[in-house]
Amino acid sequence: MAEQLRVGMVGYAFMGAAHSQAWRTVNHAFDLPLWARMRVVCGRSPDGVAAAAARLGWESHTTDWRSVIERDDVDLVDICTPGDTHAEIALAALAAGKHVLCEKPLANSVAEAREMAAAATAAQARGVRTMCGFNYRRVPAVALMRRMVEAGRIGEIRHVRAVYLQDWIVDPEFPLVWRLRKEVAGSGALGDIGAHIIDLTQFVTGRSIRSVTAATETFVKSRPLPTASSGLSASGSAERGEVTVDDAALFLARLDGGAIATYEATRFATGRKNGLRVELNGSLGSLVFDFERMNELGFYDATLPAADQGFSRILVTEPEHPYMAAWWPPGHLIGYEHSFTHEMRDLIEAIGVGKDPAPSFTDALQVQLVLDAVARSAATARWTEVESI
Amino acid sequence: MAEQLRVGMVGYAFMGAAHSQAWRTVNHAFDLPLWARMRVVCGRSPDGVAAAAARLGWESHTTDWRSVIERDDVDLVDICTPGDTHAEIALAALAAGKHVLCEKPLANSVAEAREMAAAATAAQARGVRTMCGFNYRRVPAVALMRRMVEAGRIGEIRHVRAVYLQDWIVDPEFPLVWRLRKEVAGSGALGDIGAHIIDLTQFVTGRSIRSVTAATETFVKSRPLPTASSGLSASGSAERGEVTVDDAALFLARLDGGAIATYEATRFATGRKNGLRVELNGSLGSLVFDFERMNELGFYDATLPAADQGFSRILVTEPEHPYMAAWWPPGHLIGYEHSFTHEMRDLIEAIGVGKDPAPSFTDALQVQLVLDAVARSAATARWTEVESI
Amino acid sequence: MAEQLRVGMVGYAFMGAAHSQAWRTVNHAFDLPLWARMRVVCGRSPDGVAAAAARLGWESHTTDWRSVIERDDVDLVDICTPGDTHAEIALAALAAGKHVLCEKPLANSVAEAREMAAAATAAQARGVRTMCGFNYRRVPAVALMRRMVEAGRIGEIRHVRAVYLQDWIVDPEFPLVWRLRKEVAGSGALGDIGAHIIDLTQFVTGRSIRSVTAATETFVKSRPLPTASSGLSASGSAERGEVTVDDAALFLARLDGGAIATYEATRFATGRKNGLRVELNGSLGSLVFDFERMNELGFYDATLPAADQGFSRILVTEPEHPYMAAWWPPGHLIGYEHSFTHEMRDLIEAIGVGKDPAPSFTDALQVQLVLDAVARSAATARWTEVESI
Amino acid sequence: MAEQLRVGMVGYAFMGAAHSQAWRTVNHAFDLPLWARMRVVCGRSPDGVAAAAARLGWESHTTDWRSVIERDDVDLVDICTPGDTHAEIALAALAAGKHVLCEKPLANSVAEAREMAAAATAAQARGVRTMCGFNYRRVPAVALMRRMVEAGRIGEIRHVRAVYLQDWIVDPEFPLVWRLRKEVAGSGALGDIGAHIIDLTQFVTGRSIRSVTAATETFVKSRPLPTASSGLSASGSAERGEVTVDDAALFLARLDGGAIATYEATRFATGRKNGLRVELNGSLGSLVFDFERMNELGFYDATLPAADQGFSRILVTEPEHPYMAAWWPPGHLIGYEHSFTHEMRDLIEAIGVGKDPAPSFTDALQVQLVLDAVARSAATARWTEVESI
Repeated sequence: MAEQLRVGMVGYAFMGAAHSQAWRTVNHAFDLPLWARMRVVCGRSPDGVAAAAARLGWESHTTDWRSVIERDDVDLVDICTPGDTHAEIALAALAAGKHVLCEKPLANSVAEAREMAAAATAAQARGVRTMCGFNYRRVPAVALMRRMVEAGRIGEIRHVRAVYLQDWIVDPEFPLVWRLRKEVAGSGALGDIGAHIIDLTQFVTGRSIRSVTAATETFVKSRPLPTASSGLSASGSAERGEVTVDDAALFLARLDGGAIATYEATRFATGRKNGLRVELNGSLGSLVFDFERMNELGFYDATLPAADQGFSRILVTEPEHPYMAAWWPPGHLIGYEHSFTHEMRDLIEAIGVGKDPAPSFTDALQVQLVLDAVARSAATARWTEVESI
Repeated sequence: MAEQLRVGMVGYAFMGAAHSQAWRTVNHAFDLPLWARMRVVCGRSPDGVAAAAARLGWESHTTDWRSVIERDDVDLVDICTPGDTHAEIALAALAAGKHVLCEKPLANSVAEAREMAAAATAAQARGVRTMCGFNYRRVPAVALMRRMVEAGRIGEIRHVRAVYLQDWIVDPEFPLVWRLRKEVAGSGALGDIGAHIIDLTQFVTGRSIRSVTAATETFVKSRPLPTASSGLSASGSAERGEVTVDDAALFLARLDGGAIATYEATRFATGRKNGLRVELNGSLGSLVFDFERMNELGFYDATLPAADQGFSRILVTEPEHPYMAAWWPPGHLIGYEHSFTHEMRDLIEAIGVGKDPAPSFTDALQVQLVLDAVARSAATARWTEVESI
Repeated sequence: MAEQLRVGMVGYAFMGAAHSQAWRTVNHAFDLPLWARMRVVCGRSPDGVAAAAARLGWESHTTDWRSVIERDDVDLVDICTPGDTHAEIALAALAAGKHVLCEKPLANSVAEAREMAAAATAAQARGVRTMCGFNYRRVPAVALMRRMVEAGRIGEIRHVRAVYLQDWIVDPEFPLVWRLRKEVAGSGALGDIGAHIIDLTQFVTGRSIRSVTAATETFVKSRPLPTASSGLSASGSAERGEVTVDDAALFLARLDGGAIATYEATRFATGRKNGLRVELNGSLGSLVFDFERMNELGFYDATLPAADQGFSRILVTEPEHPYMAAWWPPGHLIGYEHSFTHEMRDLIEAIGVGKDPAPSFTDALQVQLVLDAVARSAATARWTEVESI
Repeated sequence: MAEQLRVGMVGYAFMGAAHSQAWRTVNHAFDLPLWARMRVVCGRSPDGVAAAAARLGWESHTTDWRSVIERDDVDLVDICTPGDTHAEIALAALAAGKHVLCEKPLANSVAEAREMAAAATAAQARGVRTMCGFNYRRVPAVALMRRMVEAGRIGEIRHVRAVYLQDWIVDPEFPLVWRLRKEVAGSGALGDIGAHIIDLTQFVTGRSIRSVTAATETFVKSRPLPTASSGLSASGSAERGEVTVDDAALFLARLDGGAIATYEATRFATGRKNGLRVELNGSLGSLVFDFERMNELGFYDATLPAADQGFSRILVTEPEHPYMAAWWPPGHLIGYEHSFTHEMRDLIEAIGVGKDPAPSFTDALQVQLVLDAVARSAATARWTEVESI
C-alpha cells in the first residue's frame, strides 16, 4: 500500500466541491507515490460542514480551522475559502509544518501575498511544499499550449489576447454575494477571473507582464443583500447594499520579450458563461484556447506551405497529450473538474518525490503584483510598472 | 445513513473503468435513495483483477463471475464484458434475483437478446430491475434534445441524420483485438457504435426504425494478432488473422411517423475520434448534437421571425438543463464519464423508488432487431423490415 | 483588343442572373484569350426579357430561342432554362455549330442525355465545345479539394459523405413552382441538388459511382398553384395541385476504387439554406467542405505527429489557391457568384486554346445515369447498378 | 433610360479594383435613380493606368487627376489613392462642384480632415454630396447588427470588443511598401485597419469613443526597399529602409453611454488574414461578427428562457436582411466586393434622391480624432480625451 497524503480542507463551497471531486478521483486515475486521504473538512456552519463532509466524502469535519492545522494526521492543508482568510490560514499551516495548497488569488493584498511567499520560501527549506491553485494550467489543452510554445512551435511571441468572460451578474437584481464585497473578495472580476488569465498567459508564454494601462468599471452600483448563497447562485432581499468591487477590468500590457497584450475580465459579457480565451500570435504560428471548448486547441503553423496553412482544431484527447493517457480513448472528452484532478496529481507527485510544485506562492505573488499594478493604473489613468518581487 | 445498493461488476477494461468512475462519484454528486457501494469486481486474470480492484476502488475481487452472483452482499450485477458473455451472466444474475445493468449491445444475437428480455420481464414481477447501458442518453445535451422534441419544439420530424465516426483502426497494422472478432464482439462498427446511434435516435425522436437498406464493409481483411491489449489500444505480433467483423456499416431507414434517415457507423473516418453526430429536421425546427462538443446542443427555431433565425449553440451547462444542477456553474464543462454517472444516478433512483429504469432489456432487444435487419439487408441487397419484438 | 466570344443566353431567371453576373465580370477578373460579349438574351415573356436585358446587361433580347442560334454574331449558346428544354435547344445549337454551355442537370432523362452527349462528341470533331454547368466544381475550396486528393494527400479514399440540404419548401403552403413538377423539372431534390453532390464527389475523388440503394420521399403531396414566381420564391393561389417530384432523395453508394458513400438531397432540412457538405475520409487524411462556409476547406493530415493532428480550417483565399490570385488579398472572401465567373473563365480559356472544357456532356450523362439508378433503386427497393455510358 | 452618374476614379490599385468591380455591378444588382457610368480612371503610370482602364472597365484614362475634376462629363470623383493625397484631391473636386467619395481614412492628419469636413459641409449647401468609404458598414451582417442594436435587441451596451487582425507583414523580409511609410500612409495598422473598427463599432452602437489609453508597436524596425508592389504583395531589394509606422495599435476606450471597450489592430496576428471581429455585450443580449465568416451574425438573446439561450449563427442571406433581396437565394453567400457594391448603391441612392449619404466627411473626421487621440495616448502613456469636432 502506498504511503498516504492526509488532507484537511478548509471551505466547502464551489471550490471545496471541485477540490473534493479531485481528491476522491486522483488516486484512481493516476499512479502516484502517495495515496490521498480525505481526512477532514472545515467550515463555519456546523450543519453545513457536516452535510458537506457526507456529501463530498470527507472522513470527519470541524468548524475550527486551527484544529485542522493542529492535527497530527493531516499532512496538507487545502485552502478553499474566500481571499480574506488565505493569509492567516496559510501562515499558520506553514508554521505547523503542513504542506499548503491555496486557492487563487493568493491573497487580497500585495502585503499579505509577500508575507505568504516569504513564509513559503522559509518552509521550503524544511521540506514543506506550497502551491497556489491556478487550476487552468492543468487543462490538457493549456498544458499542450505551454509545451508547444516551449518547443518553439510559434516562434517569438508578438501578441497575447486574453479574455475571461462571464455573465452571472448582468441582472441588476442578482444579490450582493461575497464575491461582490471588497473586504472579503479583495476585488471583483479582476482578482477572481482576471488573475486566471494573468497566470495562464504568463505560464504558457514563459514571460512576465512588465507594465499595464487599465480601466475598471462597476456597472451596477448597488444590489439586493443576499438571503442565501451557494456557489455562484443566490437569492436577494429587499434591502440593498453597495457593490464595492469591479464588474469588469480591462488592461493593455507589455510583457518581457517584447510582446504586447490585451486582457479583459468581466462578469457582464452576456451569453459568455466561462469564456476564458487566450490567443498567442508568434513569428512562426499561433495558438488559441477557449475554455468553453476546453478539449480543443487551435494551432496555426505558418511554417507549412502557404496553400496548406490553416487553424487546426487539435482535439486534445490523445494519449500523447498532457495528462490524457490516464483517461478515456481519443475523442471521449473530459470536463472542468479534471483540471483539479490534474492539479492534485501534480501536487502529490511533487510532494512524493520531494520537489517544489508550481505555481509556487512566489509565482502567485507575482500575479498579485500585476493585479495591484492594474488597480493602480485604473486609479491614476497612466501606464504603470509592475513591482518587482 | 442511506440504505445501500451493493454492486458487483464483471469486467474491468474500458467500460469497467468508466463504470467504476461513475460508481465512485454518483453518491457525491446526487441525492439518491440508495448509497452505491462498490463491493466486488470480477475478471479473468487474477493479477489483473487484483490491480483493477485497487486502482478502480472496489472492496474485493474475484475471477469467478458466478461467485459474484451468489454473494448475498451484492444487490446489482454490472456487466461490462464483451457481448458473447452478456446473456449467460445476465440470465444467471436475474435467476439469482439480482438487479442487472448490462452494457450494450445487449447480446451478440437476436436469440440471446430475446431470452434476456423475456427473463428481465419475468424478473420484473419479482421487483428485479434491469437496464441496458446506452450511456449517451444521459449526456445532458442529448437528454435536452429528447425534452425539446417531446415538447414539440421542432414539430413533426422529417429527417434523421446520424453518424458515429471513429478512426482507431485505419492503420492496417493495428492488431486484431477482440472487438474485431465476430465470435466475441458479434459485429464490428455496427454493434459497437452503430447500436449507440440507433438507440439514441430512437430515444430522442420517440420513434422506431421500421425498415432499412444497408451496406457493410471490411476494408482491411487481415491484421496482426494482438500480443497485449488494453481498452482500444494494443500491440501486434508478426502473425496475422482474419478480420471477421465489419469496419463500417451504413444504412438508410424509415421510421414510424414518416421520417427518413441515414445512419453510418465506421472506424475508418480518419480524424474523427468519437464523432457521434445526430441531426433532426422537423417541420418547426432542427436539433443537432456532436459528441466531440458534447456540452453543446444546436437548435434552429423556425418559428422565430425570418431575419432572426439561425442555429443556436446552447451551452448545456445551466441548472435548468438535465442533470446539470448537480455539477459546476454555467460554462464549466463536464466530460464523457459524466454520462455514466448520470446512468448510475437514474438506475439507483429507479431501484430506490421501485420503478423500472430505461432503457429496458426489451428496448435493447429492439435495437438488436434493427442491427439484425441491417445485417440481413447488407447480405441480401434489399430493403428489409425490422422484426417485431 | 482580344478576339470576342459572343454569347447568347436562353433563360433569365435565377441561373440566368447568376450567369449574367459572371459574363459581366469574367473579362475584368481574368486575362483570357477571348473577350466575352453579352450579345443577346432570350426568354418567353416579351416584357420580362426586355427588362432582364436591361437589368442584366445584355445588348439585345428576343423571345425566340431559335433566332439566337441562327445569329451569325453568336458564338456560344448558354442554356439556363428548366431541364425539359435542354435537349432541344442544345441539339439545335450544336447543329448550328455553336459552342454550348448547358446548366445541370444535362437533361430530364437518360435518353435525352445520351442524345446530347452523342451530338456533343460529334460536334467536337468540328471544333465545337460543350460544357455542363456544374458550377460548384469552381468553388476554390472544392478545386483545392480535388488538387489535394489528386496529390495523394489523403491516400486511398474509404468514405464519402455528401449532403445537400435546403429548406425552402418546408412550409406546406409554399406553392407548386416549376421545380416541383416532374414534366418540367424531371425530378425534385434529386436532379436539382442531388446532381450537384454526385458530380462534385465524383470530381473530387476521381472515382465513379457504381451501384446505389435509395429512398425518395414526398412529404407534402399537394401545394397551392403558383400565381407568380421568381427564382426560388413564389406566392400561391387557393387552388392546389399535386407535387410530382421527390422532396428528398437519399442513397448509399459504392464507388469504384472501393469507397462507400452516403448521399442525401433534401428541401426539408429546416435551417439548412444551401448546405452542400462533403467529407472524404482516406487512409492518410480527410477533407471537409461546407458551402455555407464556402471560403474554407477542412483538412486532417494523419501523417503529422499524433499530438499535432487536427482538422485545419484552410481559408481558401491565398493566391496559391485555385482561382484566387484574380481576386482580393487573403481573408477577403468571395461568394456564390464567383463559382460562375470561374466556370466562364475555364470555358473561355478552353475555347480560346482549342481544348475541350470539363465537365463534358458525357460527364454529365454519367451523372444522369446515377440519377436514373437512384430512381430505379427507390422504385424496386434493391441495390441497383449504374448503367454504363 | 435612367439619368447617369458619371464617375471619375483616382487610383487603380487594390481599392481601385474593388471600387471598379462595384461600379460595374451596382446598376445590375439594384434599381437605382441613377445609372453609374465609369467615365475615366486616373493613375500616375501611363502604361499602368491604360492597362487598368481596359482591365477594370473604364471608358478612358489619364495621368492627371486635375483633368478628371475639370471634366464636364464627370459628376463624382472617387478617391482611391493613399491618404497623403486625399485632402488635395477632395478639396479640388468639391471646389469644382463634384460629388466626392473618398476612401478611408479620410486624411493623414486631423488638420487635413478638418479642412475636408468643412469643405464638405460648405459644398452640401450647393447640393454636392460627400461620403467616406467605410465599406464594412455595408456588409449585410454589420448592417443587421446596427438594426438590431437600434431596435433594442441587446439592451444597454456594456462591452465592445473589436479587433482587426492581419498577418501580411509578419515576415521581416516583406518589403517597405507605401503602407509602411508614414509620409504616405499617415500611420500603419492604426489608420489602415484600426480606422475600420473605430468606425464600425461607433456605427453599430450609435455611440462615440470619448477617451482612450493606447499602445503602439513596430516589431520590425527596417525592411527591404520594394522593387515592385501591387496591392498588399510586393518584392524587395537588398537595400533596407526604416519602417515609420506602427505594426500594431491597441487601445482601451470609454464610449458615451457608459460602455467600455478594447480595440486592437495589427498586421502581426499570424494566421489571421482579415480578422475583423466585433462583439457587443448588452444588458439583454450580445452580437458577434467576424469578417472571415462575413455572411454570419452571432446573436445571443438573453430574454429567451434560460434553457433555450445560446449564441445563434444567423446566416445573413435572407431577403429580410439588409441588401440581400438583390442577390441570390438564402444560403448562397456573397463576398468582400459586395460591401463596395452596397456602398455605391447607398451613395447613388442618396445622390439620386438628394440626401446626404453616410458616413459623411464629418463622421470620418470624428474617426480621425479618435486615431489622433490613440496616437497621443501612445506617446504620453496616459488616458487621453478625444477632441471635439
